[in-house]
Amino acid sequence: MRDRNPYSATILIYCEDKQGIIASVTDFIQEHDGNIIYLDQYVDTEENTFFMRIEWELENFIISTDKIDTLFKEGLAKKFKMNYRLYFSDEKLRMAVFVSKLPHCLFDILARTQSGEWPVEIPLIISNHEDLRPVAEKFGIDYHCFPVNPDNKKEQEEKEIALLKEKQIDFIVLARYMQVLTDDFIKQYPENIINIHHSFLPAFPGAKPYHSAYKRGVKIIGATSHYVTAELDEGPIIEQDVARVTHNDSVKDLIRKGRDLEKIVLSRAILSHFKRKTLVYKNRTIVFS
Amino acid sequence: MRDRNPYSATILIYCEDKQGIIASVTDFIQEHDGNIIYLDQYVDTEENTFFMRIEWELENFIISTDKIDTLFKEGLAKKFKMNYRLYFSDEKLRMAVFVSKLPHCLFDILARTQSGEWPVEIPLIISNHEDLRPVAEKFGIDYHCFPVNPDNKKEQEEKEIALLKEKQIDFIVLARYMQVLTDDFIKQYPENIINIHHSFLPAFPGAKPYHSAYKRGVKIIGATSHYVTAELDEGPIIEQDVARVTHNDSVKDLIRKGRDLEKIVLSRAILSHFKRKTLVYKNRTIVFS
Amino acid sequence: MRDRNPYSATILIYCEDKQGIIASVTDFIQEHDGNIIYLDQYVDTEENTFFMRIEWELENFIISTDKIDTLFKEGLAKKFKMNYRLYFSDEKLRMAVFVSKLPHCLFDILARTQSGEWPVEIPLIISNHEDLRPVAEKFGIDYHCFPVNPDNKKEQEEKEIALLKEKQIDFIVLARYMQVLTDDFIKQYPENIINIHHSFLPAFPGAKPYHSAYKRGVKIIGATSHYVTAELDEGPIIEQDVARVTHNDSVKDLIRKGRDLEKIVLSRAILSHFKRKTLVYKNRTIVFS
Amino acid sequence: MRDRNPYSATILIYCEDKQGIIASVTDFIQEHDGNIIYLDQYVDTEENTFFMRIEWELENFIISTDKIDTLFKEGLAKKFKMNYRLYFSDEKLRMAVFVSKLPHCLFDILARTQSGEWPVEIPLIISNHEDLRPVAEKFGIDYHCFPVNPDNKKEQEEKEIALLKEKQIDFIVLARYMQVLTDDFIKQYPENIINIHHSFLPAFPGAKPYHSAYKRGVKIIGATSHYVTAELDEGPIIEQDVARVTHNDSVKDLIRKGRDLEKIVLSRAILSHFKRKTLVYKNRTIVFS
Repeated sequence: MRDRNPYSATILIYCEDKQGIIASVTDFIQEHDGNIIYLDQYVDTEENTFFMRIEWELENFIISTDKIDTLFKEGLAKKFKMNYRLYFSDEKLRMAVFVSKLPHCLFDILARTQSGEWPVEIPLIISNHEDLRPVAEKFGIDYHCFPVNPDNKKEQEEKEIALLKEKQIDFIVLARYMQVLTDDFIKQYPENIINIHHSFLPAFPGAKPYHSAYKRGVKIIGATSHYVTAELDEGPIIEQDVARVTHNDSVKDLIRKGRDLEKIVLSRAILSHFKRKTLVYKNRTIVFS
Repeated sequence: MRDRNPYSATILIYCEDKQGIIASVTDFIQEHDGNIIYLDQYVDTEENTFFMRIEWELENFIISTDKIDTLFKEGLAKKFKMNYRLYFSDEKLRMAVFVSKLPHCLFDILARTQSGEWPVEIPLIISNHEDLRPVAEKFGIDYHCFPVNPDNKKEQEEKEIALLKEKQIDFIVLARYMQVLTDDFIKQYPENIINIHHSFLPAFPGAKPYHSAYKRGVKIIGATSHYVTAELDEGPIIEQDVARVTHNDSVKDLIRKGRDLEKIVLSRAILSHFKRKTLVYKNRTIVFS
Repeated sequence: MRDRNPYSATILIYCEDKQGIIASVTDFIQEHDGNIIYLDQYVDTEENTFFMRIEWELENFIISTDKIDTLFKEGLAKKFKMNYRLYFSDEKLRMAVFVSKLPHCLFDILARTQSGEWPVEIPLIISNHEDLRPVAEKFGIDYHCFPVNPDNKKEQEEKEIALLKEKQIDFIVLARYMQVLTDDFIKQYPENIINIHHSFLPAFPGAKPYHSAYKRGVKIIGATSHYVTAELDEGPIIEQDVARVTHNDSVKDLIRKGRDLEKIVLSRAILSHFKRKTLVYKNRTIVFS
Repeated sequence: MRDRNPYSATILIYCEDKQGIIASVTDFIQEHDGNIIYLDQYVDTEENTFFMRIEWELENFIISTDKIDTLFKEGLAKKFKMNYRLYFSDEKLRMAVFVSKLPHCLFDILARTQSGEWPVEIPLIISNHEDLRPVAEKFGIDYHCFPVNPDNKKEQEEKEIALLKEKQIDFIVLARYMQVLTDDFIKQYPENIINIHHSFLPAFPGAKPYHSAYKRGVKIIGATSHYVTAELDEGPIIEQDVARVTHNDSVKDLIRKGRDLEKIVLSRAILSHFKRKTLVYKNRTIVFS
């Protein structure tokens, strides 16, 4: 199934929890000869909210691809007042990468796309510094430098947005981009901007978390990937991981160990995102298996 | 939902994968006013086999509890040729613990049951040695000693089985019981005997795994909990975990670090078992979330 | 070496870093025919401070046990202005355990001492509730209940201290004791009170960390054992560990998974403490291997 | 200290354990005004063998760099019959990378060297296939293809050795190189060939470990980096790490999760090697902290 990679459709749903949702959705697919290849659901009982991810093969599905959305919207979505998103497996998402000076996450992302590990396109890299232009050139990707300062930030972001729209970017990855984006920018890509923060959030938000971690004498460090929201380092968490440290590790050692964490955690979050495994609800991220 | 702990029924199913199974099962529950509170399914595409765990509240379910099994068997189970098991949430399983001389797993199990962490009863402890009788007495549990040697093994096991049957034992936990059970014994409790092996299987099966791990110079040790089958240390794995070690750790250090692994891994496996989260198929264990 | 468990002495040292300290200390032991069986040192370069743990066999050591302290103090300690502590391997530390209502850490500690895993004595358990008296009785340990409220806190603590002194307690373990100790109490046992906090500090200090972790949507939870200081949950960290969670885990699930973390992390911290592996400096804990 | 990166010397020692070794070595450095910045030692009590890594700043050291080796050899090394190796911190090691078709480890290694994370030179990449030539070209590194079959293996290896010698290669990394090297080849670089095996050795040696892991139903997969010896997958282990998997992970998922493990584990092993932290003794690797 997973190994066959058939042409398939995926629906991500959330709505008020009621009896009969699962039966109705699976009936809808089954009656039209769709073969379900993934189903996971979750109920937040405090919020009385139902969440579901369902994927089915389109090979024998008797509704044509361009009609599925309308039929689902008019039928089940209306009946259960669902919020939903429909995806098809042949889409290839277009990702923009924002960087500053540190190359490790960028290298990791580029290696995964160019080796075919990820079916994702990277039409451009944006930075506030020139430092990583050689890396972009090595991989043959357009590199745009928009130096940012408090005075020109709004203006520069507008240029960036124009470029992102022109290049039809689907989602943005902040790969150790050391700038805070404005709310106006964030609103252009809701739940489509992924950041990596170099600490185990909510511990050590903000600047220089490894220095803070050293000073606090923690025995474990972490990295956190999350969707960017208006509140700095407060967005819904997608993925976290940790590494053990000792008193013997200097700040420099923490930074070195942290680099590996950051790139792996960020890459796992990107994978969950483009495989349509994530659903954000009230600042928490449901990450389907 | 999970927090409410309602009176509920659970069905674990496996059968040949076909279109419509999920829709049919969810319809069956939904039509009779059951509220589904858990659904997870998995398809082994190589074996073309479908697996499912579904749990629903019985509060408004219009089929009476004693009729569910018959109705399900005559209906869906027959139609899809399902293997299935039905459970009700008010059962309290009866567990027997087998030990030899090492107390750490036994203490952990007894603490969990007596503190109310686990809704499980332990009517008896069986051992081939007298060493842990004081522990059993401390917790007020019957302790039966059956010293085993090559000559009396068959005979002793028969006595043990008689006792287990008399006490209506549902499943058996080998908590560092250093004896190999005969096939005849194992056949009495298929998929209901849980062992803890003190290595990361399939590495270091058999005796003295910590000594072998030390000699091989591994940098990580592990523990493995599995269902007992006729092949020693080859049964389907339920849970594993690991701990980091260094060249500096002696065999004694490995044994010390391993003790904590063993008791935690065994307890997680027991939890999955009595919460009806496990399903064995062709020597692999599906462990539902 | 470690396997022999010889009669040995251990010195823990810290002082300003200077050339020649290691050579001087090892010479001191070597010249008097002591066989060094452990040496680890660490330099905090920012603070220019030297830390060392050294252990040597006393079998052929030509200085008699009761003279070592004086000779070391008048010699090397004076020369290098060392802070140091000297221990002998045949001491058996006396530990008091403070609990409230949750039994899991207490059971784990009692199991380890009574099974001989830890060479530590527990002369008494202190609580602000009666709930765990049956556990203490099961293990034959004195249980003293001092209900605490804002009005009687000072008075009750004085009674507790009197009892601790009478019983010659060396160090105190707060095994999910839900009360904050006053500074006056803490000053009686500096660097000798070990707490377990049920979060990955500095994330989620204070009350109800699992509820906060759930609300924040973290993907990993943790537990932290630290020495108690006047600042709540701010003392020097001894040990931390984490467990992975998902959106699917309710607060109740976090509490369940956290229980295992708490007891293991606390027990590792206690082990490091009574094996004289820890040294506190400026709110960080050096934990020798 | 670590943060200053001073010009320093490191000695790795092993010899029969005797009283006075540590004192003698630290005296040797101290008497000549060397400042010790790292000292770790370990005694294998079963083998009665002493191991030590010591590093000191050369700034005020009164023995000139070119005399240290001779003086140490004639003095302490002779007295204690030490095996030892002396290194200086300004060496830049020359590494050759062997690959077949899989690019993930290669990309990771190249990113680390070209971003300055590792002070190591890569004069050449050797492969038995043409597939990764574009990656080498992207990073501007010589790529030599030596297709190997049973008939030409000896001949091709001789050419490879000639090339390695010509390029003055210090050590070799097999970054998912799918060929077994002959003993003659291995003897040219004893303890200087590092392999990554895609399983948690000693579990699943040989070909297709992820398929075997899937079939066995393990709940954790691993990767192992080790020095290459004449026995396939039996060499001394440098580093291992693991990742959790479930019944839900197909072989393809294991391969995907394993890729990240492989590259991180291999890179950690390479780091330990070129920082002179490793010492091999009787098929175990001492990895100093």
